[in-house]
Amino acid sequence: MMKELFKGIPKIAYEGAKSKNMLAFKYFNPDEVILDKPMREHLKFALSWWHTLCAEGADMFGVGTADKTFGAEDVMGHAKAKVDAGFELMEKLSIDYFCFHDVDLVAEGATLAESNARLDEISDYVLDKMKQTGKKCLWGTCNAFSNPRFMHGAGTSPDADIFAYAAAKIKKALEITVKLGGNGYVFWGGREGYETLLNTDVKFELDNMARLMKMAVEYGRSIGFTGDFYIEPKPKEPTKHQYDFDTATACNFLKTYGLDKDFKINIEANHATLAGHTFQHELRVAAVNGAFGSIDANQGDMLLGWDTDQFPTNIYDAMMCMYEVIKAGGFTNGGLNFDAKARRGSYTMEDIFYSYIAGMDTFALGLRKAAELIADGRVDEFVKERYSSYQTGIGAEIVAGKIGFQELEAYSLKKEPSLPKSGRQEYLESIVNNVLFQG
Amino acid sequence: MMKELFKGIPKIAYEGAKSKNMLAFKYFNPDEVILDKPMREHLKFALSWWHTLCAEGADMFGVGTADKTFGAEDVMGHAKAKVDAGFELMEKLSIDYFCFHDVDLVAEGATLAESNARLDEISDYVLDKMKQTGKKCLWGTCNAFSNPRFMHGAGTSPDADIFAYAAAKIKKALEITVKLGGNGYVFWGGREGYETLLNTDVKFELDNMARLMKMAVEYGRSIGFTGDFYIEPKPKEPTKHQYDFDTATACNFLKTYGLDKDFKINIEANHATLAGHTFQHELRVAAVNGAFGSIDANQGDMLLGWDTDQFPTNIYDAMMCMYEVIKAGGFTNGGLNFDAKARRGSYTMEDIFYSYIAGMDTFALGLRKAAELIADGRVDEFVKERYSSYQTGIGAEIVAGKIGFQELEAYSLKKEPSLPKSGRQEYLESIVNNVLFQG
Amino acid sequence: MMKELFKGIPKIAYEGAKSKNMLAFKYFNPDEVILDKPMREHLKFALSWWHTLCAEGADMFGVGTADKTFGAEDVMGHAKAKVDAGFELMEKLSIDYFCFHDVDLVAEGATLAESNARLDEISDYVLDKMKQTGKKCLWGTCNAFSNPRFMHGAGTSPDADIFAYAAAKIKKALEITVKLGGNGYVFWGGREGYETLLNTDVKFELDNMARLMKMAVEYGRSIGFTGDFYIEPKPKEPTKHQYDFDTATACNFLKTYGLDKDFKINIEANHATLAGHTFQHELRVAAVNGAFGSIDANQGDMLLGWDTDQFPTNIYDAMMCMYEVIKAGGFTNGGLNFDAKARRGSYTMEDIFYSYIAGMDTFALGLRKAAELIADGRVDEFVKERYSSYQTGIGAEIVAGKIGFQELEAYSLKKEPSLPKSGRQEYLESIVNNVLFQG
Amino acid sequence: MMKELFKGIPKIAYEGAKSKNMLAFKYFNPDEVILDKPMREHLKFALSWWHTLCAEGADMFGVGTADKTFGAEDVMGHAKAKVDAGFELMEKLSIDYFCFHDVDLVAEGATLAESNARLDEISDYVLDKMKQTGKKCLWGTCNAFSNPRFMHGAGTSPDADIFAYAAAKIKKALEITVKLGGNGYVFWGGREGYETLLNTDVKFELDNMARLMKMAVEYGRSIGFTGDFYIEPKPKEPTKHQYDFDTATACNFLKTYGLDKDFKINIEANHATLAGHTFQHELRVAAVNGAFGSIDANQGDMLLGWDTDQFPTNIYDAMMCMYEVIKAGGFTNGGLNFDAKARRGSYTMEDIFYSYIAGMDTFALGLRKAAELIADGRVDEFVKERYSSYQTGIGAEIVAGKIGFQELEAYSLKKEPSLPKSGRQEYLESIVNNVLFQG
Repeated sequence: MMKELFKGIPKIAYEGAKSKNMLAFKYFNPDEVILDKPMREHLKFALSWWHTLCAEGADMFGVGTADKTFGAEDVMGHAKAKVDAGFELMEKLSIDYFCFHDVDLVAEGATLAESNARLDEISDYVLDKMKQTGKKCLWGTCNAFSNPRFMHGAGTSPDADIFAYAAAKIKKALEITVKLGGNGYVFWGGREGYETLLNTDVKFELDNMARLMKMAVEYGRSIGFTGDFYIEPKPKEPTKHQYDFDTATACNFLKTYGLDKDFKINIEANHATLAGHTFQHELRVAAVNGAFGSIDANQGDMLLGWDTDQFPTNIYDAMMCMYEVIKAGGFTNGGLNFDAKARRGSYTMEDIFYSYIAGMDTFALGLRKAAELIADGRVDEFVKERYSSYQTGIGAEIVAGKIGFQELEAYSLKKEPSLPKSGRQEYLESIVNNVLFQG
Repeated sequence: MMKELFKGIPKIAYEGAKSKNMLAFKYFNPDEVILDKPMREHLKFALSWWHTLCAEGADMFGVGTADKTFGAEDVMGHAKAKVDAGFELMEKLSIDYFCFHDVDLVAEGATLAESNARLDEISDYVLDKMKQTGKKCLWGTCNAFSNPRFMHGAGTSPDADIFAYAAAKIKKALEITVKLGGNGYVFWGGREGYETLLNTDVKFELDNMARLMKMAVEYGRSIGFTGDFYIEPKPKEPTKHQYDFDTATACNFLKTYGLDKDFKINIEANHATLAGHTFQHELRVAAVNGAFGSIDANQGDMLLGWDTDQFPTNIYDAMMCMYEVIKAGGFTNGGLNFDAKARRGSYTMEDIFYSYIAGMDTFALGLRKAAELIADGRVDEFVKERYSSYQTGIGAEIVAGKIGFQELEAYSLKKEPSLPKSGRQEYLESIVNNVLFQG
Repeated sequence: MMKELFKGIPKIAYEGAKSKNMLAFKYFNPDEVILDKPMREHLKFALSWWHTLCAEGADMFGVGTADKTFGAEDVMGHAKAKVDAGFELMEKLSIDYFCFHDVDLVAEGATLAESNARLDEISDYVLDKMKQTGKKCLWGTCNAFSNPRFMHGAGTSPDADIFAYAAAKIKKALEITVKLGGNGYVFWGGREGYETLLNTDVKFELDNMARLMKMAVEYGRSIGFTGDFYIEPKPKEPTKHQYDFDTATACNFLKTYGLDKDFKINIEANHATLAGHTFQHELRVAAVNGAFGSIDANQGDMLLGWDTDQFPTNIYDAMMCMYEVIKAGGFTNGGLNFDAKARRGSYTMEDIFYSYIAGMDTFALGLRKAAELIADGRVDEFVKERYSSYQTGIGAEIVAGKIGFQELEAYSLKKEPSLPKSGRQEYLESIVNNVLFQG
Repeated sequence: MMKELFKGIPKIAYEGAKSKNMLAFKYFNPDEVILDKPMREHLKFALSWWHTLCAEGADMFGVGTADKTFGAEDVMGHAKAKVDAGFELMEKLSIDYFCFHDVDLVAEGATLAESNARLDEISDYVLDKMKQTGKKCLWGTCNAFSNPRFMHGAGTSPDADIFAYAAAKIKKALEITVKLGGNGYVFWGGREGYETLLNTDVKFELDNMARLMKMAVEYGRSIGFTGDFYIEPKPKEPTKHQYDFDTATACNFLKTYGLDKDFKINIEANHATLAGHTFQHELRVAAVNGAFGSIDANQGDMLLGWDTDQFPTNIYDAMMCMYEVIKAGGFTNGGLNFDAKARRGSYTMEDIFYSYIAGMDTFALGLRKAAELIADGRVDEFVKERYSSYQTGIGAEIVAGKIGFQELEAYSLKKEPSLPKSGRQEYLESIVNNVLFQG
């Protein structure tokens, strides 16, 4: 029987909004049904291996503050201790899924062969735990950005040997994902971008990135991967300019290279705002492009210019996120992965729980409030009414594609239009507040 | 014979870098040949009707400071005075092209019919001047954002009558463009975006925007327009979020709706930086997407969050812009339009000249320095060498598409890659400074 | 008897959180007592003359959409109609105060003498209304930025005649403020900054600004003004760099020139965020500097780089604002002025009401929740406990100023410190959400 | 005799602007006299120990790429190897000064006593080298932000033991600075700020920061430190909000606590832009406040929101920086420290040289061009003339403080002012370009 690593912390129970118990959920009640589905299925929460089990709080100005050795001493022992810790956390927090990079599971070895052997061993261990617990893999990915060899990119490296090595690493990560039953595989292009155009052939690099992704699709489908590939956009950091700037940029890339059938978008809230968009905007753009896939749930600080990966606590954002998710038909292969880390100053084991509870309750309340907003109906009705002039007359003809400039000029010469109706932004924002705070 | 409006200001002559005459060009020598073409053909400078002949310096906190009535009193008199002023400026500044919105040429009338009649009259007057002087129209466009009726958009208005009216206005602007021999027609979506997603059906609005553009292409081609249509991206302002956020977003839109054959991109420097990109980045992205079209030359203030439309004076940016233009094969239908205005505090007639001279000399020097950078060869050689591993061996096989993950894994298991070569950013930046300041 | 201008709109009643009536308050119940004071006294709401009664929704890309003529035809008729409208709004919205610039009350005349005469006449009219209704003036100010003569500043103009003129205008605005019983006079330096350091003597301009403020204090005290002078910081817009960048900058200026006894700070939420600070930060900094004065309540869009002056609807911000206000002892001479405008697309008379209701309810709920947060006590207790090591031992000696480096080194050589306690940010953010959403 | 660590790289010679040798100075000619002083005295370049000798290129997404072990194996051996490397670099690059944090010189020991002993040993070694070479210490400082114990601040830590420990560390760093003859001691408040106001008592923390600085002044003066203390402002990173946001904020703090006699400001270019200011602005503000001290020379990327610490290569910025330095009377105790690092992808030993050459040549050319701008005289003359109305008449009376509002109103009633003269921004920017590119 497994040793308890987070001692003194019980399984987190749902106690409702009035509870003052900080180690309880106030809003997340996993099996409660909202809009015909249990909350856990709406939300599909995932634990992120890297932030939760690996990262110790180092930043550019200081070393780690938290201890994530979990008492282990050697490489494989540490890797297994992290698995133990991860499953204990998932169990205590009622989280059904997890996400991982290859190097999160176990440190790289001295050679590719050794790294692969380690991954085989640790993934056996994970798989065993999954069978015991029913926990699932949401998606896997490959870290092709931390090792110095990837300093100039992986798929976009100017060095062909590095491209080859990245391909080999991604192959393995994809195999492990399939082995663990993951229905998603993510490409986040950590160094797929440029520092200066003075040394960069953008066209060649993009062609190569597409080549790499095509190989991934081909190989993935050949080994039985039926899930979604995802691009995770981010505009900058670590590179000055990343190729997958935002959802629209990624969609343009996918269309240009014919990859849009196999790829969807994994949207991170903090990446959205770094790109100059709201989280909701990126979700909407993905849906409009038929590319809504999965979500990296976190929040940034709107006054800071880097990826802070904070646990989400803003209910407005969570509510509008879940509103978009519901409108997009809910998750299929995707889910809500907490790409979030406790602050460097929140370094204790308890803080991991406080942080996840904060994030999960935020999205649980967001789901509840999104459902209430839809039930309220005023916002949806307003939007429907707003475009109603396209249902009949000249509007319907425009939509039907029956008329052109000449007919429209003739129409307008006869009818000088009146002002359109008020957009009523403040009125609509009041409705949102009313729904949020009606009790 | 025409009355001189800018009295006391002579035709601006080229006097070379040593001149202290502020009413002389130091670098722009129109007929001097650089890289096998006269400077005027490389640069294809255009005067912007709106900033130069209409705008008086009003901002959100104060009314205009400059007087652009040119002594005229009634509507058509004022419109003609602006034409006179514009051609005098083009003549004195050796500018070969101009760009216009419909409403720049003449104020709208009380009805569409009256507006159209005014446009017919004033365009006759312009055409006459063009024949006398040899000046040309670079592109035309339609202002479908200033009138209150467009408060919620034109092509993306929720009101079908407004869509119709916008179509009618664009029809006329396109006709006038063709009449004046313009080889470009620009769509800048001033209100084609949203203020809040609470009242917006993004998918429907984008579909409508595409419908409008398809009508424009169809009608334009039917009346003999053989030039390029352009989208001019801008991320925000006036709307909170504009649909044509940046070049990649516009290209995604064009591909989604099958408009990429007829449309190219008109890139504005200040819009690029508002979107989080360098000017050079946007030019490169357009070229990579086969969509490099035309340029709105100006510069923003990197510490301000709105479109300042300053006359460009930064030689680094102008040099790298012209480097991209040369690499893209130079302008075909496009050119360099000064979408720039003298500061509100630079309100005299002389300031118009100082401003244009500043901007034109900046781009002229930028052209000279871009040519020197290419002649120097070190930067281009560095880039070529950097990707050379893809010319042979495994790299060539990757590019040829002959191999996949399995071959690349096999290769990498045999060969742990060494570190890629240094990116040498500082070295390359020194070369740029050396070229700029070698005298 | 006065003609009703906002026909069909009744006096807005408090109906509580469950009401679906959009023309009712859900949270603002003026005479309800919270923390020993009626809400109206905690909040001291003020109507802004400029946005509410003058501005018609023009922006840099389009003319106004709303009609604020109120049926009037001549200058004084219009000025009086605005007074009528303002008092009707205050009455219907239960707003007790108003704020004004001189030029909001009545348009400037052809000469200073004429402007002054108009101000005398309209202020008589306002005073009369005040007596009838009990409405009060929160503060007055002078617009020394819109007229072209102020293009390079007023107190910081390089032209001494402009300085003189600004002084004359401020003198009059101050007199009108005193006449109307205002307890505050605001300096917002709309053009007191620079566009480029190439033409600016910063030191001289700051000296002059201080000279102007000293004259204002001297004159104001001489005519019986016993209220507070305020600086309203803003970092940029319209000028590239405004001297009163933020609260700390303004406090430095006040201390440098010995003005800190007579001046406090008027903090605007949107200006705070443009300066890179939260609204709460600026309030805290003002309090720490003994300079907390008054508030311009609005909100910006965190993804836009200009002053959007939106009606505040974010409860988090309003709650933390009121938390700071309560902690600072509440308002004395200051209050909550809505320096906010309905969106350009919200152009109807109803939108003015929807907007004010949105803003007032947001702050009313913010007040209620701030009071609940204080009653909850967990946040305040956490902070107190966090610094408790300074109550005794070495901490107490540090605070008492009894020891220096040598004693502290001796102490530390004996005692290697353990890690400080966790900062518990996520835990605290959960408490805030619990208080907000406990019903 | 010392082993050569940077083999194959010769002493960098001045070869002039026409040289194509990338391992030569094009503009920095140390003993060439400009404006009556050798360039080396104008510029007072300093090598930064941390970036140059310690940092290996790690970022938030990857480990180091460069090797800075210099072949050493144990702690003191490594520390000495860094000294050897540093002095070889200073010698080969003709850099006269260096700057250090305590932990740069040698890694911390297990206890404060051990750390102090190590510092004693290594500083002896440094001092010996200084005597041999004539190299000098520009300033020293203490790293009170990297160790986990400082996670919530040093002087502003909520834990009194941490405050004590910080004081002990600063005491030692100050002693080492004095021992090495440093004329500056810097406070950069890496964690002196807050992450969230929910857990922070700002007033108490500021009081404590002042207490710590007063102790430093007292102790420093007692051991013979006659140089300047500096605050180095930075707005954010690592903390969400740092107390020393910018120069004005730091000056306000210094005045509030009576520290302005002993402290000046150390201005970093990249920190300036992160705070929303130009580098030149911060220099001017420091001068205006009598607080111009020293400079951390680097440059940021205006599109990135974090401190990139790039080697400066922008001549515009370097020119205007040196213009401000000259106008402020040049450096006294301060100098130009390169708080800059080669890009992560520029990881070779050669890149250190290319980077320093790039930075030094940029400032050397900036100095030359600033001197030319002053010699040209047109900009200075324009500014002088612009304010000339304050030399006589009403302007002189304003400056003399002889008149107030009543006199100025009387004056203005008689004289409606005309528009002020044009600000001529574009004209002045053209002059700058003319000076830069006149050859």
